[in-house]
Amino acid sequence: MIECDKKGTLFVLSGPSGVGKNTLIDQFLKRNPDVHYSISATTRRPRKHEKDGSNYYFLTEEKFKAMLERGEFLEWAEFCNNLYGTPLKPIEKMLNSGIDVVMDIEIQGAKQVKDKLKEAVLVFLIPPSLAELKSRIQNRQTETEQEINARLRQALVEMDVGRMYDYYLVHDNTENTVLELEAIRQAETQKIRRINWDKVIDSLKEGFNA
Amino acid sequence: MIECDKKGTLFVLSGPSGVGKNTLIDQFLKRNPDVHYSISATTRRPRKHEKDGSNYYFLTEEKFKAMLERGEFLEWAEFCNNLYGTPLKPIEKMLNSGIDVVMDIEIQGAKQVKDKLKEAVLVFLIPPSLAELKSRIQNRQTETEQEINARLRQALVEMDVGRMYDYYLVHDNTENTVLELEAIRQAETQKIRRINWDKVIDSLKEGFNA
Repeated sequence: MIECDKKGTLFVLSGPSGVGKNTLIDQFLKRNPDVHYSISATTRRPRKHEKDGSNYYFLTEEKFKAMLERGEFLEWAEFCNNLYGTPLKPIEKMLNSGIDVVMDIEIQGAKQVKDKLKEAVLVFLIPPSLAELKSRIQNRQTETEQEINARLRQALVEMDVGRMYDYYLVHDNTENTVLELEAIRQAETQKIRRINWDKVIDSLKEGFNA
Repeated sequence: MIECDKKGTLFVLSGPSGVGKNTLIDQFLKRNPDVHYSISATTRRPRKHEKDGSNYYFLTEEKFKAMLERGEFLEWAEFCNNLYGTPLKPIEKMLNSGIDVVMDIEIQGAKQVKDKLKEAVLVFLIPPSLAELKSRIQNRQTETEQEINARLRQALVEMDVGRMYDYYLVHDNTENTVLELEAIRQAETQKIRRINWDKVIDSLKEGFNA
């Protein structure tokens, strides 16, 4: 058995509103139960079916700002007048135990993560087309026509920033996209710079005198 | 349909003699017929079952050195008193046509490839253990005991240089190892720095006025 001292990898998933990040992550986690999902904190109102501690920790603005002052976030961002942030300690603990973590954050937050954790893997999810994105947002029935158009303009801005990400995935067929995300995870596992190569050599030699 | 102007990726596979590079590559190519296998030129004698133009182009030393002087190699190396090299032009042509290429070369050659083609992906194949590697070389029945021991000492030296590679694969079960190599290929396909992101954005907008 080859030993390699691999730490967990942090996968950061971003993409325009309505691209289907939740659907993709749900399917990915079902097939990869060894991956931990990092739950963000936010001050935005829960959507229909969203539960505290499941999709997000829904915090008051006061509570969020208190945590921010104590430096308890890996990243935080303001988006559409709401605050979003990721508590740092639980993530570090998982990664140090060799557990992969996946998180779903906005592009402003993703930049901060990459600055603090160089080894994080940034994945940008794009829709098959803008027309398809618009239709998905419309089906959600949570935004007005005006809000939808603002989302689409925002999507184009985010798409431009997307170029700083490591990988992109086209979210067309969820089943296929999950497989592509799994391939990215597998490949990252095989990266030599993520492991202790001396330990690999030592475990190869084990019980052998050349 | 998202367009991204992706060029082909060059996958360089190395690993100690006897690790089973040929077996792995054969299986990989069978499952991925769209990948081109780059055949190296060498001055070493063909092994049993090896055919000119199939495993290698078997060249005389004179012919090899003439090509070398004309700068016709992407990389070349001397190994165990034999010369090995990869003709450059056919590789460039494939990559520019968007075709992935896989090549099997020694570590000295791999370094030269990475120097010349920064975007090449270097994969290092390791055996599950040194004892297993010895047994595989013995089964080949082409080397004397003395040559086998030299191979094993060489393997340890190469293993150390392996740390400059991008990825490693443990060649235990060929079927699994092929899947891991396929995951690496898939992940590299999704890398944003390999594509034209502006073209992606343009094709997303197609037929849509935000």
